[in-house]
Amino acid sequence: MSNTKVLPLLEPAAPESVAPCCPPLNERPLTAGEAERTARMFKALGDPVRLRLFSLVASHEGGEACVCDISDVGVSQPTVSHHLKKLKEAGLLTSERRGTWVYYRVEPSVLTAMGQLLAIVPAAA
Amino acid sequence: MSNTKVLPLLEPAAPESVAPCCPPLNERPLTAGEAERTARMFKALGDPVRLRLFSLVASHEGGEACVCDISDVGVSQPTVSHHLKKLKEAGLLTSERRGTWVYYRVEPSVLTAMGQLLAIVPAAA
Repeated sequence: MSNTKVLPLLEPAAPESVAPCCPPLNERPLTAGEAERTARMFKALGDPVRLRLFSLVASHEGGEACVCDISDVGVSQPTVSHHLKKLKEAGLLTSERRGTWVYYRVEPSVLTAMGQLLAIVPAAA
Repeated sequence: MSNTKVLPLLEPAAPESVAPCCPPLNERPLTAGEAERTARMFKALGDPVRLRLFSLVASHEGGEACVCDISDVGVSQPTVSHHLKKLKEAGLLTSERRGTWVYYRVEPSVLTAMGQLLAIVPAAA
């Protein structure tokens, strides 16, 4: 009926392997697997503190920040660390340890993919 | 010190008044209020079933769909209705009753705003 290949089911992706996914949301319905994978990223940004931290990292000088750079979001440093880890687990941030501190950086390919997903052009009337 | 006006605090926005918000996430850190408002939308898309339903509505003929059009997401019709309402409450869908059914449609301005938020250009090295 169709010449598309059935892809094998994937194990839950490790953070490093989170791949950009999916066409604009109005092109076709997402499959269950695509929705599962993509919802994780939206969920990670669905918390006000995490979203604010994400924008702090994204807008910080050089496009990266460590916990030591973040002091004004009204939560403790351990809480900041916890949320940064969650964003990393969702594939939205990458991290690198340098000396005492772990530096976080936005993963641009994932963000671009999420932006494309939302790039919905209104249908012609 | 600044010539920006202090805006009055807003009551939680009614679905109809959810306004597109905020510059790209790497332009400046979001304020607490901006993050609160925007996180609601990401959270609404942070559930796999809801994200799938959203893509079903967005990609349905004419850009709209009712519960009667949705049958293959593996959850009951009341559950579908519940999730569609949540998407509406977050400002991502609008609805209109026609006869027996409520038809849902994507709210393009909000989606465009979310897309812009994620339109992060990698910083030059």
